[in-house]
Amino acid sequence: MLISFEGIDGSGKTTQARLLAEHLRRAGTEVVLTREPGGSDGAEAIRRLLVEGGTDRWSAETEILLFTAARRDHLERTIRPALARGATVITDRFADSTRVYQGVTRGDLAATVETLHRLMIGVEPDRSFIIDIDPALGLARGAARGGAEDRFESMGLGFQQKLRAGFAALAQDHPQRVRLIDGHGTPDEVARRVQAAL
Amino acid sequence: MLISFEGIDGSGKTTQARLLAEHLRRAGTEVVLTREPGGSDGAEAIRRLLVEGGTDRWSAETEILLFTAARRDHLERTIRPALARGATVITDRFADSTRVYQGVTRGDLAATVETLHRLMIGVEPDRSFIIDIDPALGLARGAARGGAEDRFESMGLGFQQKLRAGFAALAQDHPQRVRLIDGHGTPDEVARRVQAAL
Ligand SMILES: Nc1ncnc2c1ncn2[C@@H]1O[C@H](COP(=O)(O)OP(=O)(O)O)[C@@H](O)[C@H]1O
Ligand SMILES: Nc1ncnc2c1ncn2[C@@H]1O[C@H](COP(=O)(O)OP(=O)(O)O)[C@@H](O)[C@H]1O
Ligand SMILES: [Mg+2]
Ligand SMILES: [Mg+2]
Repeated sequence: MLISFEGIDGSGKTTQARLLAEHLRRAGTEVVLTREPGGSDGAEAIRRLLVEGGTDRWSAETEILLFTAARRDHLERTIRPALARGATVITDRFADSTRVYQGVTRGDLAATVETLHRLMIGVEPDRSFIIDIDPALGLARGAARGGAEDRFESMGLGFQQKLRAGFAALAQDHPQRVRLIDGHGTPDEVARRVQAAL
Repeated sequence: MLISFEGIDGSGKTTQARLLAEHLRRAGTEVVLTREPGGSDGAEAIRRLLVEGGTDRWSAETEILLFTAARRDHLERTIRPALARGATVITDRFADSTRVYQGVTRGDLAATVETLHRLMIGVEPDRSFIIDIDPALGLARGAARGGAEDRFESMGLGFQQKLRAGFAALAQDHPQRVRLIDGHGTPDEVARRVQAAL
């Protein structure tokens, strides 16, 4: 089973992916917890190009290609081998982030994103959780966390608001696969909502 | 005008691109001499991922995406601005290298390469010169040059022989745009063949 966590920056994806992995492991499931961009040696090298540097370092089109390159490597080297031996894979971001960040927020590129996804990736998670929070709260959490990986956070509050709307629309368009989870409250409260929706 | 030099490793592309740039500049033309992968800040960062490291660092599919990402950045930041102000651009490799290296030699991916090219690049050079030499000579020249950028040279003589056949087939398929140039002889002898074919 492949499960993804999606949502705006600082929404709690990394926290919730970890809590779900712990929950499933307690139940005896082998879980591979991974992330995007990254999750394999090559993809982690590509990650540094994507999440560091100035906001205009890459165009939306070049970003789509770099995210897809990282995803292809992640899929070949980490996700497919884990699924093949029966493990459950939980990934902190997957293709929905590209659909929303590059497809509808940075550019009007939804059709390009889909074509490229079908051509080079072709895999959807069995279940995708979108952790939904107030974008101002997400940016405040991200700022508190610090670090150099702030290229998308630097795009500002208006950008994060458009992302939130994009993720909500995605949940509407794919009601079977995608579940919108209220991300307000304590981490444990949110984790119980995720477990109930699984 | 956009001109590309293509061919196997060590064939003399960099040497001939430089000699043609000097020739056109002597005639008063503004020339931008550039290269792939690379030719812009972002694309040079991607280049290091592609030309260094072990031969199995990336699959052919991931390579196609990384080369296309680098090409998109190169096109946006270097090639299009130069063409827009009327300069002649000479690039040391372009899309034909992806067609031959990833499309027919590393994998059976010619259709994928074309689809991706149409989706994200969509530009062909006005003239492409393939410098054709004996692959054993190309590898010997590359080894003499040294350096860390030897990922494709490390794929061996059989690989270079398939590349040579792939480039020759490309010249046959696109007789208007692509010209096969005999790369044996002194640099000046080869340069005169290029100038005659321009
Ligand atoms: N429910 C929550 N309440 C308060 N703080 C949280 C909550 N979930 C996560 N955090 C904190 O907010 C920051 C961002 O959370 P994180 O899980 O890294 O989000 P994301 O991966 O979506 O960017 C982290 O410092 C994390 O500890
Ligand atoms: N016609 C030639 N005869 C002999 N040596 C050459 C010739 N053209 C290039 N070289 C040398 O061979 C090496 C490879 O040439 P280069 O132009 O870098 O090839 P490429 O860019 O195709 O790999 C360089 O050291 C270069 O100086
Ligand atoms: Mg995170
Ligand atoms: Mg060269």
